Amino acid sequence: MRWEGLRPTLLFLFEGEEERGSPHLGEYLSLLSGRLAADLWLVCDGPVHQSGRPQISLGVRGVMDLEIEVYGPAGDLHSGHYGNWAPNPADLLARLLATMRDDEGRLVVAGAEGPEPDRGALRLAGAVPDPPGMGFPPPGGDSYAARLLRPLLNVRGLRSGDVGAASRNAVPTSAVASIDVRLVAGQEPGEVVAAIERHVAGEGFHLVEGTPSPETRRAHRRIARVSSEVGYPGVRIPGDDRRVREIAAAVAAASGEDPVILPSFGGSVPLHHFAEALGAPPLILPIANHDNGQHGPDENLRVANLWYGIDLYAALLGQAEPRSG
Amino acid sequence: MRWEGLRPTLLFLFEGEEERGSPHLGEYLSLLSGRLAADLWLVCDGPVHQSGRPQISLGVRGVMDLEIEVYGPAGDLHSGHYGNWAPNPADLLARLLATMRDDEGRLVVAGAEGPEPDRGALRLAGAVPDPPGMGFPPPGGDSYAARLLRPLLNVRGLRSGDVGAASRNAVPTSAVASIDVRLVAGQEPGEVVAAIERHVAGEGFHLVEGTPSPETRRAHRRIARVSSEVGYPGVRIPGDDRRVREIAAAVAAASGEDPVILPSFGGSVPLHHFAEALGAPPLILPIANHDNGQHGPDENLRVANLWYGIDLYAALLGQAEPRSG
Repeated sequence: MRWEGLRPTLLFLFEGEEERGSPHLGEYLSLLSGRLAADLWLVCDGPVHQSGRPQISLGVRGVMDLEIEVYGPAGDLHSGHYGNWAPNPADLLARLLATMRDDEGRLVVAGAEGPEPDRGALRLAGAVPDPPGMGFPPPGGDSYAARLLRPLLNVRGLRSGDVGAASRNAVPTSAVASIDVRLVAGQEPGEVVAAIERHVAGEGFHLVEGTPSPETRRAHRRIARVSSEVGYPGVRIPGDDRRVREIAAAVAAASGEDPVILPSFGGSVPLHHFAEALGAPPLILPIANHDNGQHGPDENLRVANLWYGIDLYAALLGQAEPRSG
Repeated sequence: MRWEGLRPTLLFLFEGEEERGSPHLGEYLSLLSGRLAADLWLVCDGPVHQSGRPQISLGVRGVMDLEIEVYGPAGDLHSGHYGNWAPNPADLLARLLATMRDDEGRLVVAGAEGPEPDRGALRLAGAVPDPPGMGFPPPGGDSYAARLLRPLLNVRGLRSGDVGAASRNAVPTSAVASIDVRLVAGQEPGEVVAAIERHVAGEGFHLVEGTPSPETRRAHRRIARVSSEVGYPGVRIPGDDRRVREIAAAVAAASGEDPVILPSFGGSVPLHHFAEALGAPPLILPIANHDNGQHGPDENLRVANLWYGIDLYAALLGQAEPRSG
């Protein structure tokens, strides 16, 4: 079986630029693709399951940044005199955003919903316990893990005019939404941006590249700019891949606990470079503590989890005959 | 006729606190109501019509400030892990705002739409030319002046999370909209606040007075705070009031131009104090230049308009026999 092929040759790869988007990883993997061909790559990044059980993830979501700016009058307009007439960009942006997610928070932009997850992935997702502490179940009857098999449009920031003591009774000149989109395997960032631009245009907005001139503002009631920044696709090993069962059995034998098998992490790691350069995405077997404060100011790795990781990978790689699933 | 009663006694009132909400005007008028009774009060505040023609306004709108804050998780949550599950306050606020105005910018909160304008006011509104320079007609087929007979909900500011370089891929903890509401005659600010609170609750939000505790956040998917600040009602003389025709004829005789008769200004002046203390609202016959940059950093009064105001009021008050309408 292919698993046995891991025994004679172990390849180790250390990546120090992941948090800044891994700008050189793809080129590196491509240049060395002949020497880096492997039956399976394992990635140790990320936390174990929130329950403390070992966790295997079959994939990650991609990510891209979006900024949508809607334009109103060229200068602040007295709301009493012109508020019933002039387009209000904060209102128009709110109405636009309301068309991009449904009542239960799902992305509903045509062409950006992503492919249907495979049955194996949905079956695995059904067996993943929901993380504790959320207070209410995931909306729409889905499980937490099943929801991660769908893309996400997250509004991470809004700015328009002023609030609080600085607010003035005026129609603001523009309104900005900062958005991150999480992409599932099979979605190309460029296609998703194009779908979102089509959606915005379909909502009646005249699309511009930068701040519109007063003439452009007088010619169109609805004007928007859609800018996208960095982005990379998600990748995912199908839920019924035989190697997953084999690794899961090996992890159970090594750790003494059945691992949680997550069909995809919700977060993003640029593992697509492996798929593009080496033909297949890696499997993720994370070792960090579940309460590692990821991306927070207090992100940490418990020393116990460093030892856990060493023990787990040593036992895993040293197993001659993993239990077969 | 009543007009003649103005000749023997002229009362002059100078108010220096209008831009800070006239906190003492109502008390002053009430204390002196016996001495301030008059057939008609004229107010000279505000600009002439944008065309340069004299302008008479039969009323003003009221105003009040609103702040709506929608709450999400107690701390920023990683959007990849929790964005498909945790309520996003920026998204929920956008969806809520989208229910409060229609596609053409009309306030559509039940109980806050205000009374139907009288026919006389609508007839007058139909004769008012739209101000130039807006680039497109008022939405919904209304004239500019007819729209001012309706209340307005103006979103003057939005704040949530961060945008631009400061943005982070997280679900923000709250989202704020700063709003000013323009009220038409017949609307009480307190009733409008109550209607808006009912609307927000009707959209599924649990209403709180201040920042909710983590327990409250875990117990409700949708949490909002609705705060209102200052506010006063609008007032308006009915469109078919006989004195309006008489004053209009006198202005035409004095200035040599037919005045534009606006059934209500869009802006707000606390003239309700006159209605409350003296039984009737004043009529507004403004003298400032049309391009006076009202409420801007360069607000100004042209010297020529000071002379115009002196000439107009002198001629008006000195007319023995105004043309009768």
